[in-house]
Parts: sequence; C-alpha cells; structure tokens
Amino acid sequence: MIRIAVDGMGGDYAPETVVEGAVYAANDFSELEIVLVGQMDVIKRELNKHKVLGGKIVIQDAKEIVGMGDSPVAAIRKKKDSSLAVCVDLLKKKEVEAVVTAGNTGAAVAASALNLGLLPGIKRPGIAIGVPTLHGISIAMDVGANLNPSPEELFQYAQMADSFARHIHGKKRPAIGLLNIGEEESKGTEVLKEAYKLLRDSSLNFVGNIEGRDFFTGRVDCIICDGFVGNVVLKMCESILETAGAMVIRELKKNPLSLLGAWLCKPALKAIRNETNYEEAGGAPLLGVNGTVIISHGISSARAIRNAIKVAGEMVSKQVNQHIVELVKSNSAVQNSAARTEENAGGGIR
Amino acid sequence: MIRIAVDGMGGDYAPETVVEGAVYAANDFSELEIVLVGQMDVIKRELNKHKVLGGKIVIQDAKEIVGMGDSPVAAIRKKKDSSLAVCVDLLKKKEVEAVVTAGNTGAAVAASALNLGLLPGIKRPGIAIGVPTLHGISIAMDVGANLNPSPEELFQYAQMADSFARHIHGKKRPAIGLLNIGEEESKGTEVLKEAYKLLRDSSLNFVGNIEGRDFFTGRVDCIICDGFVGNVVLKMCESILETAGAMVIRELKKNPLSLLGAWLCKPALKAIRNETNYEEAGGAPLLGVNGTVIISHGISSARAIRNAIKVAGEMVSKQVNQHIVELVKSNSAVQNSAARTEENAGGGIR
Repeated sequence: MIRIAVDGMGGDYAPETVVEGAVYAANDFSELEIVLVGQMDVIKRELNKHKVLGGKIVIQDAKEIVGMGDSPVAAIRKKKDSSLAVCVDLLKKKEVEAVVTAGNTGAAVAASALNLGLLPGIKRPGIAIGVPTLHGISIAMDVGANLNPSPEELFQYAQMADSFARHIHGKKRPAIGLLNIGEEESKGTEVLKEAYKLLRDSSLNFVGNIEGRDFFTGRVDCIICDGFVGNVVLKMCESILETAGAMVIRELKKNPLSLLGAWLCKPALKAIRNETNYEEAGGAPLLGVNGTVIISHGISSARAIRNAIKVAGEMVSKQVNQHIVELVKSNSAVQNSAARTEENAGGGIR
Repeated sequence: MIRIAVDGMGGDYAPETVVEGAVYAANDFSELEIVLVGQMDVIKRELNKHKVLGGKIVIQDAKEIVGMGDSPVAAIRKKKDSSLAVCVDLLKKKEVEAVVTAGNTGAAVAASALNLGLLPGIKRPGIAIGVPTLHGISIAMDVGANLNPSPEELFQYAQMADSFARHIHGKKRPAIGLLNIGEEESKGTEVLKEAYKLLRDSSLNFVGNIEGRDFFTGRVDCIICDGFVGNVVLKMCESILETAGAMVIRELKKNPLSLLGAWLCKPALKAIRNETNYEEAGGAPLLGVNGTVIISHGISSARAIRNAIKVAGEMVSKQVNQHIVELVKSNSAVQNSAARTEENAGGGIR
C-alpha cells in the first residue's frame, strides 16, 4: 500500500475537483491510500458527494489555505498549518510516500525544497513536464523552478529527466536534447556550451542541441532547458491551441459548408485533443527534492488530479528517486575518475 | 526613388526565388529601384526568366557567397566580396538606402553591426519579427541577435519596437509587454526586474509583464524579450502548425467522413494560413544598426522577398530609424533629468 497526501485545498477548482479526482484515484488504484489534507468539514462535505468504492481515503485536518496569488516565501513562513505545509510535513515524517498538489507552484517548490531537502548530490530541484509530441510523450525540464541554472544543474536535470523517462514512460534509452538556438556545439550562452560538454561526456544518450522547432516532433525524449524559457514555452503551448481554435472558429463561421466540414472532423479533432491533453500527463513532478512531489496545473480537472496521483504512486513503486541518486552518483564517479586521469596526464602539475 | 540592395545569393532557395521576389517588388512598387547583388552571370540568367514590367532592377556583381552554415565571423573576415558584404557596403556608401537578405542571419547581423555601426545612443542591435495574433500583427524583439541583453538594452528594444509598430504597422500608441514568467513586477530575473522599472518610468505605453500565454492573443503590440527565448519561441511557432497539421492529417485519414469534412473546411483553413503566413510579415528588420536592414527567413518564397523589400522601402520613406533616434534621445533626456532631480533631492550627496 502506498500512501499519498493530496492537497485538498490547492488549485483553482479546489476543493471540489481535487476531492473528486482523489476519489477516482482511490477507486481505480487499489494499491493506493489517499490522505486528503484540508479543512476537515469542507473536505468531508465534498467527500460525501462521492462513493468511495474499493479505495481508501482518509482526511487529515489543516486549517489554513495557501492562495494561488500568495507570495511563496510569506505563505511558508506564516501559514504553518496550511494544507500544503501539512502535506509536505507528512512526507517528511514518512507518514506518506508522496504529495500531489494543484496549488501555488512557487509555494510548493519552496516548501518541498526547504522542508524535505534535496536528494544526495543534487544541487537544485527542477520541474519536469510531459509534452505531447508526434511520437508520444516527451519531458521538458526545467519549466519554472530555476531561472538561471548552472551547467551542472542543467546536466543534473538531464539525469533526472532520463530517470523519469526510463522508469515512468518506459523508454529504454531516452534521447536527451539541450534546448538552444542552433544545433552546433558553439551555439548559445556560455552556460549552455558548458552544459553541452558535460552531457556529451556523460553516459546519457545525448543527441546534442535541439531548437524550438524540435519541441513537438518527438525527436528527443527529454528536452533540457532553463526554467525561464521552459516556463514561457509551456504557457505558450497552453494558449496556442486556444488561440488557433478561436481563429479557426472565426473563419468557419463565415461559411455554412465549412461549419458542416468542421462537424465531420470533430471525432478526429477530439482524438487529438485527448492525445495532447494536459490532463493525461499526470501533473509535473518536482524532481530533485528528497521525496516524491507532483505539482499539478492550477486548473486541473478531476481526471488530471487522478492521473497525477497515479504517477505519484508509480514514482514511488518504481523508485524513481533512488534511480536518480544512483545515476548522479555514477556520473560524478565518472567525472572524478576523468578528472584524475587528466591530472595524471598533466603529471600532477596544475 | 528608393534604392534597395537585395542579396541575390542569400537564402535556401537563392538565387531563383530571391530574383523572382525582386522582380515582383520592382513591378509592384514603382517608387523602388532594386539593386540585385550577386554573381553577374547567375543573376542575369535568373533575371532573364522574368519580365520586368514597370520597375527598375540593376545588377551589382559580387563574386563570393556566404553559405547558410558558414561561421558569421569567418564569413565576414574572409569573404570580402560576398553578395552580403557588397550589399552592406553599398548601404554604408549610401548608394542604396536599405538592404534585404535571406541569407545567413548571424553573418547579416555581424556584417551590419560592424560595417554600418549603430544608431546614435543605441547599445546593441536586435531583430524584430512580426507575430500573427488574434488581433492583427504584433512584434517580438529580440529574436536572436542578443542572448543576454542588459536591462537598458531591453528598454531600447522596446523603444525600437514601438517606433516600428507606430510607423510601419500604424499603431497609434503601441502597447508594450515584457515577456516574463508571471505578471507581478517581482517576477523573473534581476535583469527583467530592472528592465521593468525602466519601462514603467518611461514615456512608452508599457502594460507590464506578459506570459507565454499572451504571445498570440494580441494583448500587446510589442513583445520585448531576450534573443534566446525569442528565438526558441519563434522556431517553435514555425513548427507548431506543421506538427499540429501532421497530427490532424494522421487522425483524419482514419475516417473517410472526416476527410470529407476536412475538404469542406479547406477554404477557412487556407484563410488562416494566409493570415498567419510568415510570407506576409515581410521579413525581420534588424533594428538599431545605422541603416535599414531586413533579414528574411532562409526559406523565403518569392512573395516573402517581395514583401520584405516593400517593408524596407516603407522603413526608409517613413524614417523609422530617425524616429528611433529621437525616441531614444528624448527618453535619455527624461532619465538624465530624473537622475538630476534625484541627485538634488539628496542634496548632492552620494
């Protein structure tokens, strides 16, 4: 049995959809036990709207709520009894094995990093997210936790994304790409050039720099980038279908035959919508912290929450964090031995 | 009469499409005279395929070609008689008033900045590009010339984009947005926070930070960003329609009724394609250099080249560069006077 704490008060549509999603997860995945964290009476009332069939759900009281607009630092300092803080606390005390929250992303990152600490060897945590592509799902990391990563931090993001892609997405040897403005090794900032070298000399399946045009083609399984560009691209993707849709509808309305055509296309478009739906991605794991934490989109539907809980359970059962620690350890061993060899070659003279 | 040098050998489909585009421009815009620069015999042969009706086209010989994959620095140093170098040279000697090239972007930026110098007061040039939105065309700047702009450089990009939007896109008081990962003033890197202040305290119509999701909504007329994120987003946009199209076609093929539907939708989709087509945008002006230079997409069609030449002519006749210089000058005057006031307020003590 894997116990997962779910932040019942976090998200734009909490507690309704979060509780609903928790019920779906409990019913669908019998190996999971859900700890719904939030104001006891509110959560209880929501829970009473649903039938919990086979699964197990318990409630853990937490009096306060971190608002979506709260300053992360202030939220952590002042709201010690928030549903988010209690979730992270349960994880720290090992009373649960994972946390899922659709609440304030900044607060979730800060609370996790500060209270759980980082995995051995990891410099900075990062947020990974599933990207729908022409050839299945890829991962982009980081998408907002670290705006100015160092070359080594980018390298570690590649290691973490690799572990996630292997053990959650079942990719045997994930192809890793570094997001840049050109494919040549000489392109981009100094930080990217350094990161390129670390990746090239590592045991990872690094295919080189990729460009914006490769984002959705599925050319790589893991897209490694800084949190600034990752965040901008992510938010752009979210809006682009909407904007394109608005353009299409505006044009279609000009002609009844086109409208009929659109109606005939509907099933195909629906299939694509499902394929590219963020709901299926199962939230965004915050990788690198000492514990399994999934941050779901603020607007998460019940289905999105259910899938995030599912992935959280898989991350625990497939020991993604242990794999990350081992990979980081083995690569630093490689680096240390390479450094030693270089030193020897230089006769020990620096 | 405005004379415009066109790099006849630059671009993936040069010289064919470039020469064709130059002919279109010459025929459509009687106020323009085109100087086609490139290997005399090659250009002449291409030109002979077309009828130059009303317009005027002359050829200027240039023996060498800068390849799309050439290193910009090496290309400038070693190929002094390239079509690109000769174009820029003509502009420097005031034998033409503008340059249009679909060749190597890096080489075009470097050649222009080095040989033409910068406009008075400008710190770094930047590339602006038209972005199709739900409400007409917006400008994004920079999209690749400056990967690590300072706050002041970002501020100047806003001034340059403002001038372009006013005088070329006819916007009365362009709304300026700073691309960031959140709307609050406190978001983003230190550079962005500083740039925010400069923009807020300026005479520009600064509406604040915008996010990736605002890119295509037309919420702002000018999207100000560093060249790294601008370049990634730009290239992503180019591929996104293609990828989405491939997904749609794959689904549609599963069902004949859907295919019929798609056929009925075709006119509407074609209208959107035209609306969002890079060809109509007329290339990307390199703003900040002391001269009018437009860098067109490497894959430019003849129509795209024609439109780039058209915009180059408009930039000259509407004196965009003069407007930029005046705007930058007036804003530094404002800043200097503000600095003086602050100094006085502090009793001259530092």
